[in-house]
Amino acid sequence: MRVERRLLKPFAAACLLLALPAGARAAGGEVGHGLDPFVLLGLAVIFVVAKVGGEIFERLNQPAVLGELIAGIAVGCLALAGFAGVETLRAHAVINALAEIGVIVLLFEVGLESNLAEMLEVGWSSLLVATAGVVAPFFLGWGVSYYFLPEEAALGHVFIGATLCATSVGITARVLRDMGRLQTRESRIILGAAVIDDVMGLLILAVVAGAIRASAAGGALALSDVAVIAGKAVAFLVGAVLVGHFLVPHIFRGAGRFEGRGVLLTMSLAFCFLLAWAAAGVGLAPIVGAFAAGLVLDEAHFESFSRRGEQGLHDLLAPVSAVLVPVFFVLMGMKVDLSAFARWDLLGFAAALTAVAVIGKQVCSLAVVERGVNRLSVGLGMIPRGEVGLIFAGIGATLTLPDARGVPEPVIGPATFGAVVIMVIVTTLVTPPALKWSLQRTPVRPEPGQDEAFREAGEDAARRTTH
Amino acid sequence: MRVERRLLKPFAAACLLLALPAGARAAGGEVGHGLDPFVLLGLAVIFVVAKVGGEIFERLNQPAVLGELIAGIAVGCLALAGFAGVETLRAHAVINALAEIGVIVLLFEVGLESNLAEMLEVGWSSLLVATAGVVAPFFLGWGVSYYFLPEEAALGHVFIGATLCATSVGITARVLRDMGRLQTRESRIILGAAVIDDVMGLLILAVVAGAIRASAAGGALALSDVAVIAGKAVAFLVGAVLVGHFLVPHIFRGAGRFEGRGVLLTMSLAFCFLLAWAAAGVGLAPIVGAFAAGLVLDEAHFESFSRRGEQGLHDLLAPVSAVLVPVFFVLMGMKVDLSAFARWDLLGFAAALTAVAVIGKQVCSLAVVERGVNRLSVGLGMIPRGEVGLIFAGIGATLTLPDARGVPEPVIGPATFGAVVIMVIVTTLVTPPALKWSLQRTPVRPEPGQDEAFREAGEDAARRTTH
Repeated sequence: MRVERRLLKPFAAACLLLALPAGARAAGGEVGHGLDPFVLLGLAVIFVVAKVGGEIFERLNQPAVLGELIAGIAVGCLALAGFAGVETLRAHAVINALAEIGVIVLLFEVGLESNLAEMLEVGWSSLLVATAGVVAPFFLGWGVSYYFLPEEAALGHVFIGATLCATSVGITARVLRDMGRLQTRESRIILGAAVIDDVMGLLILAVVAGAIRASAAGGALALSDVAVIAGKAVAFLVGAVLVGHFLVPHIFRGAGRFEGRGVLLTMSLAFCFLLAWAAAGVGLAPIVGAFAAGLVLDEAHFESFSRRGEQGLHDLLAPVSAVLVPVFFVLMGMKVDLSAFARWDLLGFAAALTAVAVIGKQVCSLAVVERGVNRLSVGLGMIPRGEVGLIFAGIGATLTLPDARGVPEPVIGPATFGAVVIMVIVTTLVTPPALKWSLQRTPVRPEPGQDEAFREAGEDAARRTTH
Repeated sequence: MRVERRLLKPFAAACLLLALPAGARAAGGEVGHGLDPFVLLGLAVIFVVAKVGGEIFERLNQPAVLGELIAGIAVGCLALAGFAGVETLRAHAVINALAEIGVIVLLFEVGLESNLAEMLEVGWSSLLVATAGVVAPFFLGWGVSYYFLPEEAALGHVFIGATLCATSVGITARVLRDMGRLQTRESRIILGAAVIDDVMGLLILAVVAGAIRASAAGGALALSDVAVIAGKAVAFLVGAVLVGHFLVPHIFRGAGRFEGRGVLLTMSLAFCFLLAWAAAGVGLAPIVGAFAAGLVLDEAHFESFSRRGEQGLHDLLAPVSAVLVPVFFVLMGMKVDLSAFARWDLLGFAAALTAVAVIGKQVCSLAVVERGVNRLSVGLGMIPRGEVGLIFAGIGATLTLPDARGVPEPVIGPATFGAVVIMVIVTTLVTPPALKWSLQRTPVRPEPGQDEAFREAGEDAARRTTH
């Protein structure tokens, strides 16, 4: 632990700077410059605590993203100790905008790593596992919310169910890789199901968020409205993929003739931001557009650029996401209000939510129709929620619904948000040991006729947890 | 010109999207998401026009940065044609914040490329050339502003003089490299003087901006106040370099033990943002801190990281600056209000400002004390103003001074801003042909005992114009 204590020094130094908010603010006002200098201090602190937190967790064989999240929670606790700078930081418009751009870049990366052909190839096993793993936690989460939070609006319960849907497969992929099991049938099913999971989760988010907005705008919500929202979401994804399939190679062949530096990166990001904006325009979350953009570019960009000996899009995107993505995770951690958990019922809610998140995904193992597969490992591998659950919770915090007295309240309030974060942390922490134990009970049976694409997809997913 | 016309297609398509502001805004409001989706559209448009503009200018053998600036002016003109989205975009807080973070990253890069040892080695020639090239344009610009803008406050004239100081040597370095003259005595003097120039320009900016803030806060400005501001600026730069020299290797040796990805990049940016914030705290522009951070890291970071076979900081920073820096240049272009130039006196002011910018730097050639040096080439090589002039003008636009009636007015108003941009464009366009003509009159005389560091500094500077 000597090393870990040394790591805490920069962490403490960075945090202490947030105790100087008065000076920082005064200087900001005095300079009269467009950019509030406090943003610069905030970004510096976020960068340092993210890297220190990530480093500590990596040394403990945990994903870096968890370290960033918990570092954020630690910084957030300083607000309770009277560090006014923390309060300013987590409410700052520019920091929040950067965090959301970070999420959009992250989902773009996830889309780039997901391969359409791969999704169609995995067959019925993955589709059934994914469906079971989405449906069961969704309704269980809905029920838990209904039982523990009777004052919440009806659609709020549905939203909490939605945060339990999507699997964050990076942690599982890393355990499988570390144990040399990426080539097994179990791995193929898990990785395939997780990609389908992502898409299903985004669709559920689109429908639930759309329903909440329609309901907040007044008027009863008919089943036909829900169908329209679902249809729009599906049409957007399919349309983006189809248009992209035929249009993008054309555009990027054109861009391939550009001689300037950074053209591939900026043009790809422009395409990502454009689809994210278009998704928002049809009432979906911007991340749906970013994911679709990644899905489309995955096929297209290599043709025109790889022959020029340039760095791949993935390598070019890595520094940008290394800078932007931690802003999101640290900020999410900072927004957890631990003081809310002084109430016993909320602690019970968090525990119950975590329990159904774990149990719900075990239904996956029942959906495995093939023989000779380690079903328990499939179920355990689907447990982690990670970034997608957090992103959904973050979106829920910006949506409002009228409460019993008709006052608009955020769908995911401070207490619920904290419970979702605890669920994300526990499901992520619990998976590696459980999966190792389960896998060690069966011998390795490498599958014949295995294609390289799957191994690569698994390695990509494993790498993603370390960004 | 067939190729250039094809390049204009994505440009026009991107611009047309800004004609849909009503829909974009409504969607933004409806989604209820934290991030205004219009920011995503704006960034996509900025990326596309920046790359198209840069590409066209690179093919015309002009620096890409000029293309980005002029693409921005073209987009800005759409506001006159009723594209309301342009107006929203150039006033948007998040876009402006991203642009300013881009400038901070740019000055950090400039600092990384400037070598302290190099600055001390160039000797008296460069120092004299730099001093002459700062003093002459400063007073000439002051005088021109005093003559053409009699209603402006006294300190406003001083500020306009300050925007003429700093040389943007990237364009010159590229011409010298293209002609194989980076090894000559002229090149050494120009490159050395430009680095000293940057520091002098930043000091003048600190003093003038400080004086303006002191004056706006009320009370007469004594010469002792100016001395205090100048002292603070020098103390900050020297202090940052000294503290950095002893502290930074220690910190980065610690960070070198981190195993996570992206640690070098995020820790360096954290250091840059921290010094930028500290600079703002003592009343200087944040870019002064960013420059100092780059100056300090240049020496330190290689020791701890190069042995680990990681990419250098420069390569890691390139994608980040490729994304952020064009936001600044396109936005600066967009802020040029061409309709202001319908007034003849303002057109005259722009012409006079450009003239003294060119003539003022010719005093440099008189300051060359060595024999056998092509003095004309030194003077011509110092002409381009580029990014530093723009950055100063951008800062001036955020400072206010009371006018004759006591109403606070921006120090650099829309009309003056446009004149500075025209000066930047013309000085940049004029340099390559003039320098080529002047250099071709003398044969190449490579200097004996030439060290590699200079050639590299020149190539770095040349590369910077193509970011």
